[in-house]
Amino acid sequence: MKKVAIFTSGGDAPGMNACIRAAVRGAIYHNVEIYGIYRGYDGMIEGDFEKLESRSVSNIIQKGGTILKSARSMEFKTPEGRKKAYEQLSKEGIEGIIAIGGDGTFTGAKIFFEEYGIPTVGAPGTIDNDLYGTDYTIGFDTAVNTALEAIDKIRDTADSHNRLFFIEVMGRDSGYIAIRSGIGGGAELVMVPETETSINEVISTLQEGWNRKKTSSIVVVAEGDEEGNAMEIAEKVKKQVHMKDIKVSILGHIQRGGTPSAQDRILASQLGLAALEGLLEGQKNVMVGIVNNEIVYTSFEDCISKTKELNQNLIRMVKILSV
Amino acid sequence: MKKVAIFTSGGDAPGMNACIRAAVRGAIYHNVEIYGIYRGYDGMIEGDFEKLESRSVSNIIQKGGTILKSARSMEFKTPEGRKKAYEQLSKEGIEGIIAIGGDGTFTGAKIFFEEYGIPTVGAPGTIDNDLYGTDYTIGFDTAVNTALEAIDKIRDTADSHNRLFFIEVMGRDSGYIAIRSGIGGGAELVMVPETETSINEVISTLQEGWNRKKTSSIVVVAEGDEEGNAMEIAEKVKKQVHMKDIKVSILGHIQRGGTPSAQDRILASQLGLAALEGLLEGQKNVMVGIVNNEIVYTSFEDCISKTKELNQNLIRMVKILSV
Amino acid sequence: MKKVAIFTSGGDAPGMNACIRAAVRGAIYHNVEIYGIYRGYDGMIEGDFEKLESRSVSNIIQKGGTILKSARSMEFKTPEGRKKAYEQLSKEGIEGIIAIGGDGTFTGAKIFFEEYGIPTVGAPGTIDNDLYGTDYTIGFDTAVNTALEAIDKIRDTADSHNRLFFIEVMGRDSGYIAIRSGIGGGAELVMVPETETSINEVISTLQEGWNRKKTSSIVVVAEGDEEGNAMEIAEKVKKQVHMKDIKVSILGHIQRGGTPSAQDRILASQLGLAALEGLLEGQKNVMVGIVNNEIVYTSFEDCISKTKELNQNLIRMVKILSV
Amino acid sequence: MKKVAIFTSGGDAPGMNACIRAAVRGAIYHNVEIYGIYRGYDGMIEGDFEKLESRSVSNIIQKGGTILKSARSMEFKTPEGRKKAYEQLSKEGIEGIIAIGGDGTFTGAKIFFEEYGIPTVGAPGTIDNDLYGTDYTIGFDTAVNTALEAIDKIRDTADSHNRLFFIEVMGRDSGYIAIRSGIGGGAELVMVPETETSINEVISTLQEGWNRKKTSSIVVVAEGDEEGNAMEIAEKVKKQVHMKDIKVSILGHIQRGGTPSAQDRILASQLGLAALEGLLEGQKNVMVGIVNNEIVYTSFEDCISKTKELNQNLIRMVKILSV
Repeated sequence: MKKVAIFTSGGDAPGMNACIRAAVRGAIYHNVEIYGIYRGYDGMIEGDFEKLESRSVSNIIQKGGTILKSARSMEFKTPEGRKKAYEQLSKEGIEGIIAIGGDGTFTGAKIFFEEYGIPTVGAPGTIDNDLYGTDYTIGFDTAVNTALEAIDKIRDTADSHNRLFFIEVMGRDSGYIAIRSGIGGGAELVMVPETETSINEVISTLQEGWNRKKTSSIVVVAEGDEEGNAMEIAEKVKKQVHMKDIKVSILGHIQRGGTPSAQDRILASQLGLAALEGLLEGQKNVMVGIVNNEIVYTSFEDCISKTKELNQNLIRMVKILSV
Repeated sequence: MKKVAIFTSGGDAPGMNACIRAAVRGAIYHNVEIYGIYRGYDGMIEGDFEKLESRSVSNIIQKGGTILKSARSMEFKTPEGRKKAYEQLSKEGIEGIIAIGGDGTFTGAKIFFEEYGIPTVGAPGTIDNDLYGTDYTIGFDTAVNTALEAIDKIRDTADSHNRLFFIEVMGRDSGYIAIRSGIGGGAELVMVPETETSINEVISTLQEGWNRKKTSSIVVVAEGDEEGNAMEIAEKVKKQVHMKDIKVSILGHIQRGGTPSAQDRILASQLGLAALEGLLEGQKNVMVGIVNNEIVYTSFEDCISKTKELNQNLIRMVKILSV
Repeated sequence: MKKVAIFTSGGDAPGMNACIRAAVRGAIYHNVEIYGIYRGYDGMIEGDFEKLESRSVSNIIQKGGTILKSARSMEFKTPEGRKKAYEQLSKEGIEGIIAIGGDGTFTGAKIFFEEYGIPTVGAPGTIDNDLYGTDYTIGFDTAVNTALEAIDKIRDTADSHNRLFFIEVMGRDSGYIAIRSGIGGGAELVMVPETETSINEVISTLQEGWNRKKTSSIVVVAEGDEEGNAMEIAEKVKKQVHMKDIKVSILGHIQRGGTPSAQDRILASQLGLAALEGLLEGQKNVMVGIVNNEIVYTSFEDCISKTKELNQNLIRMVKILSV
Repeated sequence: MKKVAIFTSGGDAPGMNACIRAAVRGAIYHNVEIYGIYRGYDGMIEGDFEKLESRSVSNIIQKGGTILKSARSMEFKTPEGRKKAYEQLSKEGIEGIIAIGGDGTFTGAKIFFEEYGIPTVGAPGTIDNDLYGTDYTIGFDTAVNTALEAIDKIRDTADSHNRLFFIEVMGRDSGYIAIRSGIGGGAELVMVPETETSINEVISTLQEGWNRKKTSSIVVVAEGDEEGNAMEIAEKVKKQVHMKDIKVSILGHIQRGGTPSAQDRILASQLGLAALEGLLEGQKNVMVGIVNNEIVYTSFEDCISKTKELNQNLIRMVKILSV
């Protein structure tokens, strides 16, 4: 293989740039030409390519975001769109593709591979950490630390005013960010989609704390929890609990950006290089990840359809630690 | 004067602890007994006092929040409430009071002084910076830096997706935090209550940027802007601008907490000591502040009623810098 | 088991407090009394114990350092010292011990167990990450991130002045912190004790970079490297390379402190609880760790005598990434 | 004036990029062409110029270092060197110069102006804050915060081990960074060149603290203190105090880099714009600064020869606060 392309797609995640950098430096090391595709599948359809050199990726390892931009492409979901994309790649002589993104990205990559057969290796770039095939996704550790710093700051003001705070963190339909930032932030309770927690359980857990003289409390809520988002849950609680000062904080998009943590820079570098070297070794239609400290390649099919279990130990720990 | 008391009240601000620490260490240095009152005016009414020693304030200079807690007291607004407060202070033999808070705190302090005459010196503890009588309030620099770090992170994701972000910062009815975090964050536009900016101006300013090939934009909105909060403004803009990906982020209560910046620790220390020494020198019914690098004492009356102008240079700068 | 004790010893590490907190909350959950021993083995010898309650460990999860203090005890190395320690523990009725520290701590714990038989479970608290029996030690992730932030700042000034910087990081005799902060910081070269790198290799690697028009370079040096520390290596290089502006930075003790990262708070919490529950389940003379995402208990003997390999992939990556 | 040039020189400081950006955006706003000169006076001599557009300075406001690089030029100190520089500027038609740096930069600028008369306005870019003509220099607030974060981390480990730490900070011959990071970090003592503190005073101050049961202490030392640097002072103290665990930490070059604080980004933006507008208004041979919240222009002569007093209040505060 002498010519490959690389792109980032879907929600962006800190560490995507480190991943791009590792793939580019790896390509140069192996004497392979590498082209960056801007704005994900949209750029692929439009032929928005640029040859990347070593200097193209200097000084980006510490940058959040992605120098190749990202987009959620509607056109790529159509056969016509994918046909145009294939034509652009053929014109450029691209023999392999590295796709950095989440399951939306890999769903598209899988279909594209089945239609046109260009070997593709994906790298898990998403803060949600809900991808099967890797213990951690690129961007997850940074997002957890960002949420944690925010929780630490909110705790200062919660403690000053004896308040109850509901803090909403990202995660789409999973509780990965919530459970870790919740434990790290000393939350009273963490509400995640993977476990059912009724409003009554919420209130009785908090009541136990108040009986033990706790004056302030933090409840971390994953955005996809079945009882609703933080605002909705707070409303339900307010109806039943009258004597507490209750506030809500939605951490929002700060969780998507910022300089990547050490773990994300290293994970991203390992996976970027392994994606490139995977392509050279004949891997195709797979996502590269690290499971139990080993580099593994998992089919896009499995990544998309299988579920990665939330660590039950962590869920149990929230209860014990807030005794 | 041989016995004084100190409390924090209203919205909390990073640096309040450094202020308490300086007042306590100053009292010990001058052989004066100092009592901490918990939970502001509520604690004053209940007699929730505790003698503070040097060790009481060890290792708190870097802490956000306030070890004396804070509250917004309804009872202190009544003559009966203030009568109880006076009785508690008399019982303890308190001869002077240091009140750390915002104009709500000083409004109460002024009335209380007029009724009962216990010398009181205030220190400006609020992130809003809208107090007349000091160039900067304790907590302002930290809040601006917190907002700025959040804007830096959001910029990463705005740039990745060519998005328009409306970011709402605190400030009650003033634009201090907005203008500084907006300039520091390279915002396209900053909307503050002190200047009128119509939705049409917002759109034409953004349009000019897009004509110059700017792909992403940040607009910082002070929560008290006349066109509404960030969510409302975003809705109005979406109605007229269809081709942009528009998102809103409300930074919320992270702006109230966190470890105080260098500037806040030093300002708080200077003002805490100056409040204590002001009491010993006969100051009463005033707030201590720093204006043009000098310690000054301003009547509570002036602090509450006079307005501090937003720096017009800064407003002008936003426009020029986003050329 | 109804009464246990816990202490921290050796070099301190961020996350030790989170570990103590989890052990204490776990003890309370299981209705076990838990005593904190101050200043490690010295406090054990002196009987410096204190019963810990839930409130004793409130708000410490985010704190660096250790509330139980730490020390390197000379007296505990003597049989007389350990006899006194045993007498103090017996007097208090202590049936089990949790020892948080590094291999120095466990060497002492192993001998003590062999002499007196009090079940002891260790938790790996050290920034060096050189303990066999766990993939990561408590404090390692935070230390790497601290080193990385420092490297990011130094890079700004290296780039401004076209300088060559030798940056020394901690690690005693291992290169864990060096290799990760080096990769994350985009270092040209990382010098670790586990691999031999001669001065000539250093110079030729740097020369290649300069030939490729790189103007500034960062070399990360682990303090135990065989060519000497950063200052010595810089001197050797200066003798042979005359046209470069060469500076040295020794990061020092900032790597030991600071608020623990998310990963360290969670790892510490898991290990603190697992140490406590391990004692209750009959574990003794072992250290608890996490290997390939599983909680494992490894004999102190193995932890002390076996070596944990540095990840060869990471060493290979430094070269490829600096192409 | 239709064509100006801008450069950065001397030790770099966080905020220099924000200053360049403001000058460039200001030039564009006023329809003036602006050229960046790389590597300070060396680049001026070599004619290493580049026309700067609005996009040249996008996304640099948050970056430490300087995109124009910096150097300390030996050649510019010679008349021949300055003659070449003048010829380069004339060839390009440069009518005005903005020089961002410290007094070394302004010494050269003053001589150059006297010889060749090209109007020059300086902006104070140095972390030392020892320039007369401005209350704060660009980079100072960030450096103080960097030193403060390091001191906070070292305190964790000092407290864990009951240690005495001597921490050396930058400042050349002044104590600005030392006094502020010392107060903010709760240091026992701060040693600055502006006041004489003998070793005996150091020991008796520390002894008083130990008598009051303080177990750990931090002493901040400015690199230019008359008793020597931190290492030398620690050695002198060790000779007389035997029972304390004494360590030294030299913060070094991390103080020169990092993302600029809010205050530095705003100060730098105000001064960059004021430097440009000053040139357009006819200012020459002056440095722009902010004194008592007003923009002022001070002759290079005064900036170089006059001294700015260290705030005596701050020095007094260190003693009182460590009671």
